Amino acid sequence: MLVRGDRTYLVEPGGEQGTDLGVLEVPEDVQPGETIETHLGDEFQVRRLRGPDLFHHFERTGAPMVPRDIGLVIGETGIARGDRVLDTGTGTGVLAASMARAGASVVSYERDPGFADVARENMKLGGVADAVDVRTDDLTEHVGDLEDSSFDVLTLDTGDAPSLVAHAPALLVEGGFVAVYSPFVESTREVVETARDVGLSNVRTRETIQREMQFDDRGSRPSTAPVGHTGYLTIARNV
Amino acid sequence: MLVRGDRTYLVEPGGEQGTDLGVLEVPEDVQPGETIETHLGDEFQVRRLRGPDLFHHFERTGAPMVPRDIGLVIGETGIARGDRVLDTGTGTGVLAASMARAGASVVSYERDPGFADVARENMKLGGVADAVDVRTDDLTEHVGDLEDSSFDVLTLDTGDAPSLVAHAPALLVEGGFVAVYSPFVESTREVVETARDVGLSNVRTRETIQREMQFDDRGSRPSTAPVGHTGYLTIARNV
Amino acid sequence: MLVRGDRTYLVEPGGEQGTDLGVLEVPEDVQPGETIETHLGDEFQVRRLRGPDLFHHFERTGAPMVPRDIGLVIGETGIARGDRVLDTGTGTGVLAASMARAGASVVSYERDPGFADVARENMKLGGVADAVDVRTDDLTEHVGDLEDSSFDVLTLDTGDAPSLVAHAPALLVEGGFVAVYSPFVESTREVVETARDVGLSNVRTRETIQREMQFDDRGSRPSTAPVGHTGYLTIARNV
Amino acid sequence: MLVRGDRTYLVEPGGEQGTDLGVLEVPEDVQPGETIETHLGDEFQVRRLRGPDLFHHFERTGAPMVPRDIGLVIGETGIARGDRVLDTGTGTGVLAASMARAGASVVSYERDPGFADVARENMKLGGVADAVDVRTDDLTEHVGDLEDSSFDVLTLDTGDAPSLVAHAPALLVEGGFVAVYSPFVESTREVVETARDVGLSNVRTRETIQREMQFDDRGSRPSTAPVGHTGYLTIARNV
Repeated sequence: MLVRGDRTYLVEPGGEQGTDLGVLEVPEDVQPGETIETHLGDEFQVRRLRGPDLFHHFERTGAPMVPRDIGLVIGETGIARGDRVLDTGTGTGVLAASMARAGASVVSYERDPGFADVARENMKLGGVADAVDVRTDDLTEHVGDLEDSSFDVLTLDTGDAPSLVAHAPALLVEGGFVAVYSPFVESTREVVETARDVGLSNVRTRETIQREMQFDDRGSRPSTAPVGHTGYLTIARNV
Repeated sequence: MLVRGDRTYLVEPGGEQGTDLGVLEVPEDVQPGETIETHLGDEFQVRRLRGPDLFHHFERTGAPMVPRDIGLVIGETGIARGDRVLDTGTGTGVLAASMARAGASVVSYERDPGFADVARENMKLGGVADAVDVRTDDLTEHVGDLEDSSFDVLTLDTGDAPSLVAHAPALLVEGGFVAVYSPFVESTREVVETARDVGLSNVRTRETIQREMQFDDRGSRPSTAPVGHTGYLTIARNV
Repeated sequence: MLVRGDRTYLVEPGGEQGTDLGVLEVPEDVQPGETIETHLGDEFQVRRLRGPDLFHHFERTGAPMVPRDIGLVIGETGIARGDRVLDTGTGTGVLAASMARAGASVVSYERDPGFADVARENMKLGGVADAVDVRTDDLTEHVGDLEDSSFDVLTLDTGDAPSLVAHAPALLVEGGFVAVYSPFVESTREVVETARDVGLSNVRTRETIQREMQFDDRGSRPSTAPVGHTGYLTIARNV
Repeated sequence: MLVRGDRTYLVEPGGEQGTDLGVLEVPEDVQPGETIETHLGDEFQVRRLRGPDLFHHFERTGAPMVPRDIGLVIGETGIARGDRVLDTGTGTGVLAASMARAGASVVSYERDPGFADVARENMKLGGVADAVDVRTDDLTEHVGDLEDSSFDVLTLDTGDAPSLVAHAPALLVEGGFVAVYSPFVESTREVVETARDVGLSNVRTRETIQREMQFDDRGSRPSTAPVGHTGYLTIARNV
């Protein structure tokens, strides 16, 4: 990331970025803490990219998952180094990139070819192009081709999540997790019922309500403008 | 992890575990999916450890941070491969271990020598002994000795968090995050005021309310027994 | 109400109450603030009954509506002196009695004859026997017999609420409110769809999450044991 | 209330109201359900005023209390016919008027003479001028002049609520309630500590989070734009 005051750009090493202060050429071996000048001589600081930056700087093909919900998926499934994750739909790719940044290898399905292209670019910007394999395809049609017990975690954020949950026991290693994000009660219920039917354990759905606190001279209180509903998160385990 | 039905044991490779079905000796080169027999001949499955298991299987020296809150810290700070994290107080060590599992190198301070010993054992069980350096010390007394700009993220879960936040601008790289977990409004306010005073940016505090959903034959509804308050999470950035 | 320390009894004027300290005979013209002795000479204070006492002292035939939800119904429909309210199912009768105490005349239907008898006794205890007409019947079967535009407010707390909502435009005066209490999302949705279909206005459903705050020497925070889900409250207006 | 389509006017019987369709003269003996013509011959329907209308039609001198919070005060204190209530500060007067409409006689203090005048006009519009005595004064200075045990309920919505709570045991009858509405944690804490110090019972503070539910073709879910924080409600009883 390149930063100058309020100006921030996400550029991959070796890339080039036009700005209102001139063009920035970023060396392949750029390091955080260095300074790069535009061709007009204005200095930008090189900053290491962090997860929440993905949310703000990835090119969007829809509303990306917010850092809080990415954290909940990572926390509840325990995403870590060495994990093999099957993910769909990719969308903007913030979840896939975040899991890759935490050490996972991710296979991520996105039906829309244009979205998939953007997601692949985003993976390069996020420095995880080698760890995320974005496939332009409908996972529902290919789920039978995937090897049994070849994933540690399955993350689903599509309308057909219920039918995919049915494959979780075959796809996941023993002890693996499936995490499903669904905005509506009805689709969440279908996910839960399928998870129970196919024998997954510890099936639970949580909704998360967050409120920002305000601290000013008058006192402390929850914000009068709270954070809204984003979705229901269902977690189940293959045990 | 070794599993047989409802019996689950967390044992490090090369370790030994007594069970009501006999003693389990775990080879150094044990692999997930294998089967190990007790000396009485009962089989246990070897399962790869996942983050939420830490919460249930680490020896406790206090109430460990729940998976949800660990996820929120990881999501809001973007913990990832290569991060250098300064953490205090270690406690049971679930947060430190989870960040290490996501690829971070963690220096974690714990004042209580007994707690620190347990935490070190827990790091071995969690397979992250090499990535987490548990120091039996009070960070407040040693914070001046630490090198400037040597951490990407600072995670604080102690009563003296406000005084430590004052050191965040010196300790963190540009763009780094501090995350503070505090149970009470008053201490949270002190943290926020200090963060503002020392010039950290994007200072915000969130409280998280979660409710489990119930799906049964009668219909769908939030649980009548919701998940309680755990604490306020304050996030600020060194920009 | 008769009170002695932790002992509290709800007795109607002219009634008699056995206690472990002897029998209390309550005069017809008893006044709050007076003192009554048991036949063994122990003194009880006479206290004026208040709404929240109904919740604790009415004989129960099911879980009565909590004071909070009664308040929400009264606040959102504006129950006041002179209102004519149609209510079903009566149950323990706390809602009917509370509305009557706020000045409404209530016709309340309860299918179960035993429950209806208990509710009638509760109305006497609550001092509103003259203002609440408990009818042992199924409102669904009699809703056609009721006069048009003869109610200001309709309060529904039964499984067949959706079918009754369809009659709200006929039963209510112009400007009147219907309030429906339903525990599940599915039944709530049916209520909302019916309300829209029959042309009611300002149809809205709210769920209420309450948390108790704790203030102690360590600081201030929400209780770790919050108040659970009780139900969805749907309000619509006949305009 | 006079209604014609989206046009609604709140006029007291005997009053006059200018509209874009001509002047409405309202007879002293007007009845709900009647029709009144403007001097230009356009018809308006006469509707009985309901509590939630006060919120929308009273002249405002500040943010009035929302119907939900009025309901919570009424529900938790059991406001009913015959109650004597001491209230401060009056503000727009929606709470005082609502309690009066539920049968209470209210003495309400408002320091600001202009606000008090508006509140008196609002009481006339609300049809409760005889039941609400708006006093232009600071209750803190006059609290010593009030007769002991002369109120059933005390409702406080001012910054000096903590000092007034100290007088609750003297002012309230045995069994009476005090309800305090405070926006900030700090002032709420002061209220709670004072209530405990002076020996009130069942002291509890609740915060209320409400969410509107959305039901559309895609499914059912909480609104992404929830209802914000309005304040902490502390209830205590004089027992």
